[in-house]
Amino acid sequence: MRTEAYPYEQLITTLHQCMTACNRCYDACLEEDDLTMMRYCIRVDRECSDMCSLFEQALTRNTPFIKELANACMEICYACAEECKKHDHDHCQACADACMKCVEECKKVLN
Amino acid sequence: MRTEAYPYEQLITTLHQCMTACNRCYDACLEEDDLTMMRYCIRVDRECSDMCSLFEQALTRNTPFIKELANACMEICYACAEECKKHDHDHCQACADACMKCVEECKKVLN
Amino acid sequence: MRTEAYPYEQLITTLHQCMTACNRCYDACLEEDDLTMMRYCIRVDRECSDMCSLFEQALTRNTPFIKELANACMEICYACAEECKKHDHDHCQACADACMKCVEECKKVLN
Amino acid sequence: MRTEAYPYEQLITTLHQCMTACNRCYDACLEEDDLTMMRYCIRVDRECSDMCSLFEQALTRNTPFIKELANACMEICYACAEECKKHDHDHCQACADACMKCVEECKKVLN
Repeated sequence: MRTEAYPYEQLITTLHQCMTACNRCYDACLEEDDLTMMRYCIRVDRECSDMCSLFEQALTRNTPFIKELANACMEICYACAEECKKHDHDHCQACADACMKCVEECKKVLN
Repeated sequence: MRTEAYPYEQLITTLHQCMTACNRCYDACLEEDDLTMMRYCIRVDRECSDMCSLFEQALTRNTPFIKELANACMEICYACAEECKKHDHDHCQACADACMKCVEECKKVLN
Repeated sequence: MRTEAYPYEQLITTLHQCMTACNRCYDACLEEDDLTMMRYCIRVDRECSDMCSLFEQALTRNTPFIKELANACMEICYACAEECKKHDHDHCQACADACMKCVEECKKVLN
Repeated sequence: MRTEAYPYEQLITTLHQCMTACNRCYDACLEEDDLTMMRYCIRVDRECSDMCSLFEQALTRNTPFIKELANACMEICYACAEECKKHDHDHCQACADACMKCVEECKKVLN
């Protein structure tokens, strides 16, 4: 059995946590009383989770397009974090944190 | 902050591990010397990882379609396990194991 | 150049139109004045578009899992149509129609 | 009923055709006699179809991240076209053409 670490384990984990946080935020936003304020948050949560999921999957199959995906993912995660930071809900704050961790990990592979 | 467990945590983890194992198997199959034997394995690895990834994401956003997705995922994981079991490569054996764990977890939500 | 038709052309087209209608409905729902009524519609639109997109892609690569995916897709499209029918918005009615066409096409491959 | 055109209709169509061409090329590559030569083509076909599919879906729901996705998609389509051009198979040539059309359409939204 393979014992050495796979490459990009940390990034894969971070992307997975971000996808999860975005989807949990999206789900919780859709149940909020004041739904009107959450329109854009719902929208960017979806875009961000889809991008993180694509990038995560691509990394697990050794994609040749790491920088291309990291660049798009970093920008989408950053925009999602900026939106989530505006809302006091725990799920939004948790999502903003997860997104900013993704931004940091994406930066590492871009440098 | 939310402290209680989210529902389906075990299934989400199992799906994530299966998606990862399928993509690692796909990647490794494409580098095998005897590629001809791996045609079908490459193919089902991809179908299985995509299905697990969809189901995993759907669960993290509280999808109303758990049984519909579990049913499809269970059958695709089973077929992928059957194919992977035919090959001695470590990555195929690891993928077969991950797929069979998914089959078991899917069965639980279907019962 | 290949001239004969690919298999499942009609189903692929119908799935593509359904994915598009679901996403347009989701986008328009998020802009509606009375957003509260659209919570579940937004949610099922997303599930349905993701399932149609997965199935559509799988068909274009000759997936061995047509019946498994058709079964899940048919049930999700049916549920999305049922929800969209409740709303008078043009985008909901268009989405309901597209979903019911998908249900019919999925039924054909299941029989 | 809405009668005006949706934005980005041409790009959506082009992405859909590219996704389809990539998946048909992937499927056909996996059936080729000389499979060894097609390793990288299979790999990039998958990455390219997944990226085109994500971008296509995102456009149909009015994503705020058009430029970010267009940039990644353009680079992946270009790499896929470069690989496909190396192979005389009709499916590779068709895929290279579809990818280059995508590159051109992506460029338009980036300018």
